[in-house]
Amino acid sequence: MNIGFIGLGTMGRPMAEHLHRAGYTLSVYNRSRSKAEGWQGAAPVRIAESPLEVAQQSDIVFTMLTDDAAVEEVYLGAEGIAAACKAVDEGDGAARKPRIVADCSTISPVTSKKLAEILAGYGVRMLDAPVTGSEPQAIEGVLTFIVGGPKEAYEQCLPLFDKMGKKAVYMGASGAGTNAKLANNMLVAANLMALSESLMMIRQAGEDPELFLEVVAGGGARSGMAEMKGPKIVNRDFSAQFMTQLMHKDLKLAERLAESLQVPVPVLASVKQMFQIACNSGWGAEDMSAVAKCYETWTGTLIGNSAEKS
Amino acid sequence: MNIGFIGLGTMGRPMAEHLHRAGYTLSVYNRSRSKAEGWQGAAPVRIAESPLEVAQQSDIVFTMLTDDAAVEEVYLGAEGIAAACKAVDEGDGAARKPRIVADCSTISPVTSKKLAEILAGYGVRMLDAPVTGSEPQAIEGVLTFIVGGPKEAYEQCLPLFDKMGKKAVYMGASGAGTNAKLANNMLVAANLMALSESLMMIRQAGEDPELFLEVVAGGGARSGMAEMKGPKIVNRDFSAQFMTQLMHKDLKLAERLAESLQVPVPVLASVKQMFQIACNSGWGAEDMSAVAKCYETWTGTLIGNSAEKS
Repeated sequence: MNIGFIGLGTMGRPMAEHLHRAGYTLSVYNRSRSKAEGWQGAAPVRIAESPLEVAQQSDIVFTMLTDDAAVEEVYLGAEGIAAACKAVDEGDGAARKPRIVADCSTISPVTSKKLAEILAGYGVRMLDAPVTGSEPQAIEGVLTFIVGGPKEAYEQCLPLFDKMGKKAVYMGASGAGTNAKLANNMLVAANLMALSESLMMIRQAGEDPELFLEVVAGGGARSGMAEMKGPKIVNRDFSAQFMTQLMHKDLKLAERLAESLQVPVPVLASVKQMFQIACNSGWGAEDMSAVAKCYETWTGTLIGNSAEKS
Repeated sequence: MNIGFIGLGTMGRPMAEHLHRAGYTLSVYNRSRSKAEGWQGAAPVRIAESPLEVAQQSDIVFTMLTDDAAVEEVYLGAEGIAAACKAVDEGDGAARKPRIVADCSTISPVTSKKLAEILAGYGVRMLDAPVTGSEPQAIEGVLTFIVGGPKEAYEQCLPLFDKMGKKAVYMGASGAGTNAKLANNMLVAANLMALSESLMMIRQAGEDPELFLEVVAGGGARSGMAEMKGPKIVNRDFSAQFMTQLMHKDLKLAERLAESLQVPVPVLASVKQMFQIACNSGWGAEDMSAVAKCYETWTGTLIGNSAEKS
């Protein structure tokens, strides 16, 4: 079985490497070609010239891209995945198309559903399969896949998800994976903002933020964010694991989803403002834990003792 | 060594029972006497008529009360702990006073500090030692103590904390335990509100809230609240572990603390509003997970499939 992988950035490259290490023949594409080069190991890797070429060479194609615009281009552009499918349908005997495409990007569920419909028209099943976890989890191969789309396509992809992640949850029909991912990231951002706020309260009260993190770890206030980002905030190490501007993008998508569902979202609304402030302050390319610096700016006090490390 | 315990409610009673089971002689007091009765086991328990009597009979006194007013009454009332200390100072030869008092209530750090100063005037060391964890953790003996006050008093109490909890963190001077507890509970409430909001988004998007909790558990969105309260919200079981009205009280204290520190707290402010709405809706005596019902009211949709269980 040939696997295609389009988008070899911070997340995509380590994900593709897990598949490659597992012995799959890869066909890969990245807009800036340098990121598509330099593969070690036995299994063959073809560096394609376009998403269309990847689609022609692969049974299953994964995409891991930054945003809706990048995904639309890769799927619907002149040299895109849909173009490969169209060529087959139009009777080009030499043309080929994949059986399944799985988009791991975090995008609007509206786009997810639209693309799935278009591909279904060509007899290709599409999954929305965004992941939780950022760079460290991608490298370790412990991502969680959140999947929407045809269930038998999900089942066929399971062995591949298994190579890149520790878990895959099938949420339901097309768009269900993206919906859950947006609600999940809203929760990540909210827990992170609440953590930042509590750390600043502790700091201004004259107590030790590190001891406070110990207290938090021992009780109901514990969270993935306190574990993963608490030490980064206290050490003022804002080196990017997941960029502030990417979370801001996800929060905008989540708010649009909530709006379409007519769900009042006071937490999300205020968290999104905070990420807007962080982006406007020039911290967009830093780790999302940089939102803690909003509180530092507002109070004139650093949460950690040290100067910034990033 | 004789141990005193004042306040034998949902939290205090199981805490006192752990000390009793460990073989300590207890002197106990509760405003409604029935809660002070019915001890099983070998070690003697004296049911006192007042906090003053407990103070006279004990080397170390623990208090676990509902709010600032109850704590002030127990410490400074005519029949209070300070009155026992005063009698000794005034040369009443038969009078006795404790060496250490540890207040496990969640109250204002202003009150904590004031009481500690008054008792210090009588040569009695006072700790603020609030806990994280609610009824189940008190029963299991796995609370975390967050302690402020004289360090040697903390060290003398460690073997006792150890009987009632799994961990004790020494935060610093008097009031430091209470400060950390308020910041901790603000975090609990914020994580809970964010969880409720994300569950409603998922529900309205037509996805399965239980599957979503699985997704959350696998990634950076995970939290103590998702683990402990997620299933309660989805099953609509709002039976009280920690009451909405008690959390509302803590949030008001936390906001006053933030105000005194001049820390802007957009998360806390909005979470406090939500708990006010929940209390006004008649859910004050239900579990704090009942805040999720705000979203149910706002959308006209239940998050869980079932009717309410509490």
